[in-house]
Amino acid sequence: MARDPRHDVLFEPVPIGARTLRNRFYKTPHCSSFGSDWPGTQAHFRALAAEGGWAAVSTEYCSIHPSSDGHPSVGARLWDATDVANLGLMCDLVHEHGSLAGVQLWYGAAHARNYESRMPAAGVSQVPSDYLFVQSCYELDLDGIRELQRWYVDAACRARSAGFDIVNVYGGHGYPITYQFLDPYYNRRSDEYGGSFENRARFWLETIELVREAVGDDCSIAVRTCIAPLREGGLAEEEALAFIELADHLVDLWDLQIGGVIGEWGEDSLSSRFGAENYQRPWIEKARARTAKPLVGVGRFTSPDTMAAMVRDGLLDVIGSARGSIADPFLPRKIEEGRLDDVRECIGNNVCAARYMQRALLICTQNATAGEEYRRGWHPERFTRAANADSDVLVVGAGPAGMECARVLGERGLRRVHLVDAAGELGGALRWVTGLPGLGEWARVVNYRRIQLDKLSNVELVPGTALDARAVLDYGADLVVVATGSRWAADGLSGTTHRPLPGAGPGLAHVLTPEDVLVRGLEPPGERVLVYDTDGYYMGISLAEKLAREGRRVTFVTPFAQISPYSTFTLEAPRLNRLLRSLGVELLAEHLVERIEPGRVGGCHVYAPDRPLSWEADAVVLATQRVSEDALWRGLRAAGDAVRDAGIRGLYRIGDCVVPRLVADAVFDGHRLAREIDTDDPATPLPFIRENRVLGASSEDYDGTLRTRPSGDYVPSSRRRRGGS
Amino acid sequence: MARDPRHDVLFEPVPIGARTLRNRFYKTPHCSSFGSDWPGTQAHFRALAAEGGWAAVSTEYCSIHPSSDGHPSVGARLWDATDVANLGLMCDLVHEHGSLAGVQLWYGAAHARNYESRMPAAGVSQVPSDYLFVQSCYELDLDGIRELQRWYVDAACRARSAGFDIVNVYGGHGYPITYQFLDPYYNRRSDEYGGSFENRARFWLETIELVREAVGDDCSIAVRTCIAPLREGGLAEEEALAFIELADHLVDLWDLQIGGVIGEWGEDSLSSRFGAENYQRPWIEKARARTAKPLVGVGRFTSPDTMAAMVRDGLLDVIGSARGSIADPFLPRKIEEGRLDDVRECIGNNVCAARYMQRALLICTQNATAGEEYRRGWHPERFTRAANADSDVLVVGAGPAGMECARVLGERGLRRVHLVDAAGELGGALRWVTGLPGLGEWARVVNYRRIQLDKLSNVELVPGTALDARAVLDYGADLVVVATGSRWAADGLSGTTHRPLPGAGPGLAHVLTPEDVLVRGLEPPGERVLVYDTDGYYMGISLAEKLAREGRRVTFVTPFAQISPYSTFTLEAPRLNRLLRSLGVELLAEHLVERIEPGRVGGCHVYAPDRPLSWEADAVVLATQRVSEDALWRGLRAAGDAVRDAGIRGLYRIGDCVVPRLVADAVFDGHRLAREIDTDDPATPLPFIRENRVLGASSEDYDGTLRTRPSGDYVPSSRRRRGGS
Repeated sequence: MARDPRHDVLFEPVPIGARTLRNRFYKTPHCSSFGSDWPGTQAHFRALAAEGGWAAVSTEYCSIHPSSDGHPSVGARLWDATDVANLGLMCDLVHEHGSLAGVQLWYGAAHARNYESRMPAAGVSQVPSDYLFVQSCYELDLDGIRELQRWYVDAACRARSAGFDIVNVYGGHGYPITYQFLDPYYNRRSDEYGGSFENRARFWLETIELVREAVGDDCSIAVRTCIAPLREGGLAEEEALAFIELADHLVDLWDLQIGGVIGEWGEDSLSSRFGAENYQRPWIEKARARTAKPLVGVGRFTSPDTMAAMVRDGLLDVIGSARGSIADPFLPRKIEEGRLDDVRECIGNNVCAARYMQRALLICTQNATAGEEYRRGWHPERFTRAANADSDVLVVGAGPAGMECARVLGERGLRRVHLVDAAGELGGALRWVTGLPGLGEWARVVNYRRIQLDKLSNVELVPGTALDARAVLDYGADLVVVATGSRWAADGLSGTTHRPLPGAGPGLAHVLTPEDVLVRGLEPPGERVLVYDTDGYYMGISLAEKLAREGRRVTFVTPFAQISPYSTFTLEAPRLNRLLRSLGVELLAEHLVERIEPGRVGGCHVYAPDRPLSWEADAVVLATQRVSEDALWRGLRAAGDAVRDAGIRGLYRIGDCVVPRLVADAVFDGHRLAREIDTDDPATPLPFIRENRVLGASSEDYDGTLRTRPSGDYVPSSRRRRGGS
Repeated sequence: MARDPRHDVLFEPVPIGARTLRNRFYKTPHCSSFGSDWPGTQAHFRALAAEGGWAAVSTEYCSIHPSSDGHPSVGARLWDATDVANLGLMCDLVHEHGSLAGVQLWYGAAHARNYESRMPAAGVSQVPSDYLFVQSCYELDLDGIRELQRWYVDAACRARSAGFDIVNVYGGHGYPITYQFLDPYYNRRSDEYGGSFENRARFWLETIELVREAVGDDCSIAVRTCIAPLREGGLAEEEALAFIELADHLVDLWDLQIGGVIGEWGEDSLSSRFGAENYQRPWIEKARARTAKPLVGVGRFTSPDTMAAMVRDGLLDVIGSARGSIADPFLPRKIEEGRLDDVRECIGNNVCAARYMQRALLICTQNATAGEEYRRGWHPERFTRAANADSDVLVVGAGPAGMECARVLGERGLRRVHLVDAAGELGGALRWVTGLPGLGEWARVVNYRRIQLDKLSNVELVPGTALDARAVLDYGADLVVVATGSRWAADGLSGTTHRPLPGAGPGLAHVLTPEDVLVRGLEPPGERVLVYDTDGYYMGISLAEKLAREGRRVTFVTPFAQISPYSTFTLEAPRLNRLLRSLGVELLAEHLVERIEPGRVGGCHVYAPDRPLSWEADAVVLATQRVSEDALWRGLRAAGDAVRDAGIRGLYRIGDCVVPRLVADAVFDGHRLAREIDTDDPATPLPFIRENRVLGASSEDYDGTLRTRPSGDYVPSSRRRRGGS
């Protein structure tokens, strides 16, 4: 297919100082927890986007000096030659695909824990971190300011040595000291670096200039800045815009974002629950009016029409993307080739950010290969023919895991793949979860896969067909994959007490599960509904929101210290708290439900178990835990030799029917099995490259290629990979 | 000095199966975040304790298989040959000191995040983790149980290959699956591994036996178990004790602890706020009655009299220690040599555990060298003569940083060290912080250093002497170290708003700082006191406790989601919450104070800023933030050439007067400066070994010795180490 001419504008080159972007797509800096310490993972993850058509890709925030050390969070670092070596690989691989490599220089002041270096943090004024505990800084004197600027320059020179083309003197998110000098919220100084706008702008301006002098002939100078105020009393929007004017002559590319990582990072990385594509447009418009230089902005872009309109309207010169580029690293190339229906659109649930918030490796719901490019050798768009492609596969259950598994099996050329589901539609639990307030975009998980499955002639969808063990045995499949999902517990079983909840159970009109409300359409009796959440993620709060919107008086009870604690990781907690309060939901954190009676619920505060409490409630909705729908799996396991006698050579299970989990993990599980369906033991994942430091190793044995696998012995050697994937 | 004969019993050998402990001291398993991935740090940290006289030292929990992967928390692992190589170094170094090396095998079930391996976790029954969100497991079938037991055996064999002498089939803390099988709280099975006590005991018993069969001729088999119930509905104490009897024939050493890591780990690692030495004795007594095998127990032992009594009373055969061994790795040797006044006693503030809870590298308040043995080459008991030992040093400020700095300078042979303080006593803020309820043992920080300083003939204490800049210039010192500490802000400045609080300020009778209450002895007027805490650690809650105990009606307001959020890291949060509630303190988390008026405080919920709230209060105590007492430092910096003209060759600052921080970090800062007082630029820390994986490195260049330093370029080469330390 050919590119839609309306999108041609996206493929024009954009000169940015010393370098030129080959098109208008920029994978903007974003966290990954790969940093400098998982160098192979980092390099191949970012380079894959270059291969996919992004004209530039950047690291996440990159510490310039050990006195700004994020440990235990993992970011990039340019402290010494080891970092130059590690990040140099990323530059090399990015260059192989004709793209530019960017780095985002960071000095965090009080926001740097320095738990590894144990150095004191230099800061603008001595006020503790907004979001860390017992973490402060010293106020830089003039000598200190000069030294800090030398650190910036030294890091920029190391970046150049590593091969970076774009050096970003980061000031976004309220996170770096550059912005903190500008913002009177952080800057309480009375010397020439504090007070007036010009004084507060001085440090950042000088630093950009120094970096430009040092590397500007070789590297483009980008500046990421933030114009929406981080909070009341913070930098005025007009001053944020005035800074763009003031520094415009020093900057080759402005990189715009809104809101801080501090406190409300979720305003910048807005989840789809709270906003659709291009939500940053109002701020982009304001910035556009103040600069003559190329401008890159973000807004969870996935539609090329929106992107092209932003360029044609003169608002953006470069389309930035973080989450969109994770979900589909090949987004630009698919647009270029007119393959819009192949785009794997970001669903905006922020599990990518959640893992970083948990200080763990990045994952993506839509893209199971994100972060696996190096360590497992997976490519999101390339699949090898399976060694056992002459097999017929039956996948039972068309939820996220089953759909992804069938898709990848189809791509790998399995002879026939039947994807069977009892329901009339694909999607599993996402058929109804996507009906919860704000979760509509999660349907992209289903939509992308439905389109891909339709294109695969070797995959057949068989909806509306319930299979029991007998029917599976009789199906005639060589390989069987059980992907039957999970359901919410009706008896109130939970990780909180490991026991059913007295007074709960199926068949009670006043005690409902999420499926009762959302699938079976049962109406909670009466006006007063109590939602009990021991799960901690989206189900409990979404039900509370839905019921409150429908006019119920809702009490939300949870044993956790915060409502929906997992939403603190997805950056949604502040808005969720405000939303539920605005809807009049009574929020009771740190409370237990102990028994349910008609009209009344008994419980207590978690720290006062001897003082019983009671809440009036006509109905209770339980989001306590999910349990695997594994009856079919158990039935097949119990069938013993009958499975082999039926000609079934492989029997596997994936997704929630193994363990109820995040959609991202269910998709991963389905993908993983299909990638490894032709190993000696597909049920057991192949070893991955751990990127651990190994004492006494004569070499890291890194040969620069994908598909390197360790000779780990945590699976018996007899089970090692047979075919490729 | 000679050993006190009363302590002779502690130095008797103890046979434990295939091996023999050379004395009765055992550095029991404890977290460090060094795991297998910081192999040099791990090896030298544990081996240092062997050198200090512990007959055995152990790793922390050690994952046996990638489906029990703690990432992003860092524990030990025995997944493959790389782990064998890394942990093998620890074994080698431990053996060099004549001690035994132990490993603690762990499989976490639902408590393993598996964020790195992305494998599903096997579990006893499918119930989510008690403390992680969206984290569950699948229920093992009988084949799965056999496979899991093979993983245990394989890991035990790898442990033997690495050189471990003691293999601990860990079941403590409710953390491993072994214990979860035994505990009906976790075990909801109805097959032969669930139901009756015998059935629930089966898995663990079989696993011990299998491990024993595999490695029992070469290794001692230890079992760590927990007898205090983790929670209501959990394993009955009698069953926990009966398991000891049941498995006694298979076990060479019982390793006893109480309480779970799950929820209330603080019961096992009880902070000094809530309990003194030997708090586990009641449970030890119960276990003692049920086993004929050697028993090791813990209880934050630091007194050799207590230890000897526990042995003589027949309660313990082996004295276990985690925190005590961190604070003083040379505890056994000091007892052996009769140097009891040299013992650096654990203060029980649990910052060691806090760092692990934050997924960061271990630190210790008392022992600044903990974790620095390898990466900085520091030995807690050995000091080299400084290259500039012919210097007179003035240390101004005898708080934790100043005392530690003076002590290490004294050890390094500086000609004369004067430690001067305006107060009449040593200790800085610890003089009065230790008067807060439960913080008395923190005085050990001062006491240890006072004793050591008294022994150093080259160190002179000069109390009751306030020095201004002029006086420092006239003092005649070659080197000056400013360590003047910090004070609490009187104006309500905080990281929460970065602004003073309207209505706050010095000199108001109804607005008090911690020093007003605790140092100046000012009485808050009236009965109703509001404590406002934006600091998040001990000061706010301790003041609330103290005032409530004195009969005030206390309202505690904090913007954080939990009261004293840092105390969740120190494992003190559950008891603190219960304590303050029991004292009738009204706890308002997620609330802001916005202005103070006489008799009334205005504020709001953090998520409802437009709905003003008001609290009646006769007095307000502000624990908002600390500010550095840096007037002397600024005065000396402003003196310019006068400093050099006064003959001062080096001017440094350390501790809270640089940045207000944890006592542990202040002590570290003082220690660091003294260790590096003879480098070209003592103000700038020397590079440390980062233990990062480096691509393209031909070798890790590890030569097995201490004092290896990297050739990092984050300090100019001109500043590299000159002398040793």
